[in-house]
Amino acid sequence: MNKLLLEINEQPEVLKRLLDLEYGHVQSIAREILGRRIRHVLIAARGSSDNAALYAKYVLGIRNRLPVALAAPSMFTVYGAPPRLQDTMVLAISQSGMSPDIAAVVAEARKQGMLTMAITNSPDSSLCRVAERLVFCRAGEEKSVAATKTYTAELLAVAMLSVALRDDEDGLEELLSLPEAVRNTLGLDAQIESAVERYRYMSDCAVIARGFNYATAFELALKLKELTYVSANPYSSADFMHGPIAVVASGYPVFLVAPSGQVLTEMIALAKELLARQAELVIISDRDDILGFAETPLRLPVTLPEWLSPIVAILPGQLFAYRLALAKRLDPENPRGLQKITQTR
Amino acid sequence: MNKLLLEINEQPEVLKRLLDLEYGHVQSIAREILGRRIRHVLIAARGSSDNAALYAKYVLGIRNRLPVALAAPSMFTVYGAPPRLQDTMVLAISQSGMSPDIAAVVAEARKQGMLTMAITNSPDSSLCRVAERLVFCRAGEEKSVAATKTYTAELLAVAMLSVALRDDEDGLEELLSLPEAVRNTLGLDAQIESAVERYRYMSDCAVIARGFNYATAFELALKLKELTYVSANPYSSADFMHGPIAVVASGYPVFLVAPSGQVLTEMIALAKELLARQAELVIISDRDDILGFAETPLRLPVTLPEWLSPIVAILPGQLFAYRLALAKRLDPENPRGLQKITQTR
Repeated sequence: MNKLLLEINEQPEVLKRLLDLEYGHVQSIAREILGRRIRHVLIAARGSSDNAALYAKYVLGIRNRLPVALAAPSMFTVYGAPPRLQDTMVLAISQSGMSPDIAAVVAEARKQGMLTMAITNSPDSSLCRVAERLVFCRAGEEKSVAATKTYTAELLAVAMLSVALRDDEDGLEELLSLPEAVRNTLGLDAQIESAVERYRYMSDCAVIARGFNYATAFELALKLKELTYVSANPYSSADFMHGPIAVVASGYPVFLVAPSGQVLTEMIALAKELLARQAELVIISDRDDILGFAETPLRLPVTLPEWLSPIVAILPGQLFAYRLALAKRLDPENPRGLQKITQTR
Repeated sequence: MNKLLLEINEQPEVLKRLLDLEYGHVQSIAREILGRRIRHVLIAARGSSDNAALYAKYVLGIRNRLPVALAAPSMFTVYGAPPRLQDTMVLAISQSGMSPDIAAVVAEARKQGMLTMAITNSPDSSLCRVAERLVFCRAGEEKSVAATKTYTAELLAVAMLSVALRDDEDGLEELLSLPEAVRNTLGLDAQIESAVERYRYMSDCAVIARGFNYATAFELALKLKELTYVSANPYSSADFMHGPIAVVASGYPVFLVAPSGQVLTEMIALAKELLARQAELVIISDRDDILGFAETPLRLPVTLPEWLSPIVAILPGQLFAYRLALAKRLDPENPRGLQKITQTR
């Protein structure tokens, strides 16, 4: 079997292992965060991990009421003028732990006496030599250039931290249901394999979500770019209305990520608006009331609490990008001009 | 003359008026910020104003060492679960002051006892009824849907705040040179009018910058989307290397915004890398050492300190989008399906 497809299919066991082996450790980090009276979080990340950072912004913001800022690493590296931090935890998220700019943000935060933490799949990396606390994703080596299992593992690590910070027993129960939910959702592969044919000559598209799934829109767009070279533009539904909706002409493809939750009403209104402009809709949801608007509905077989839905909602996106790459006769294991580890300063 | 082109050409006088009439008021706001020991800034904005917020993140971060977070308004509106703020100034940036989600962020911040401030061109708006401090852009009514003069006025208001917070006399001198620098740069229009012909059938492209001009990449991409319906994807040069560079095939158009400054070396390296992949480069810079890589060089006639360069670097982008819209026989005053005021919750 193709390496990338193998890694996509490993996700249920990866998530289960992470829950089983790391939750106790995450609880001890949460106690330290509470003990040090952390009031702000600054996250440094690149690529798919930066999309996991977007998820963390919403989860820690909404569920734990922590204001989260995303670091601009160039302030720390290129300009040598980092912001003055106070009552802040700096969280680095990085599959490889090898990008110098991410490590530089953590090093500066330590110098300023802040608590530092890394979520990574590479505990021997340069990042881990500088971050004080470490959550190891235990996803096994990810051989494909495009991140799949490490992305959902990073999301789960963030969700575990949120649960531990609230000492939230119901939340923990919800986490434990994830591996099975992921396994069920991966069953969409056969349907997606035939659905992608229609998009063989798609050259660009928009990918839209809001709230917790804003991260899913960015990650799905990145998978399409890396694996299929489609110029996919991610948006929040609100930002899309403030200008970019002008690009929508008859037949323009728009992916909507809209599982059950508080933003669903708004996403349904957007689906109607887009249909009125004759857009072509690919919709990922568990809900008939929005799937009915889709030319290509991708039905999630499970309904999760909205805050956890990004961990399953990305899966049809991973499979879609993989299958579309094959339909285009591209090599999903070796995207044009990418290496697994990207080092930026 | 076309309304949009008129507004583009009004920018020198708009910036001069803003400097003349508002700097004293901005100084008094700066004293209040310093007096209240503000340690964090949270910015709420949409559309072009959100790109001005990106500029503020770098300016206040690098020059004033203030950590800046961009608000996710859905936390305040859709989810009703705003973060707990502390030692924070909340800054709203909005041309119209009419979007309910932006006002909601400010209202919640006031409820939490934070200092609130708005930068707007509409002092009678609903936003101004809730924000305590107000910087009025004095740009005159902006009739075109696509923001141009209000965008550069918002950037200047941010720059004025940065100067006032540092009581920076050299910085003030630099600000005073901007209206003339803008006037000189607008002289590129004739060259751009003939340059756009080549891009008549461009359907998508990437727009790349880093650091202070990260905002310029986003705003140029937005102008292209609004006025020409080109699916323009903005990136930082570092983020671009972490995956999206895979979309670059022979002939793929990439706009680079790379004036003199600390990120220029990195932008030159990227230009070489892109040429090796046979991309087509449109480059906005004052420097021969990067313009030489361009199929279409757009030479800035002035060299400014890097932190102020975004106020001139966007101008060739505004003109390019306007002239390309005309070349495509589109109506730049009435972009498809947009209104001047967009209200999102």
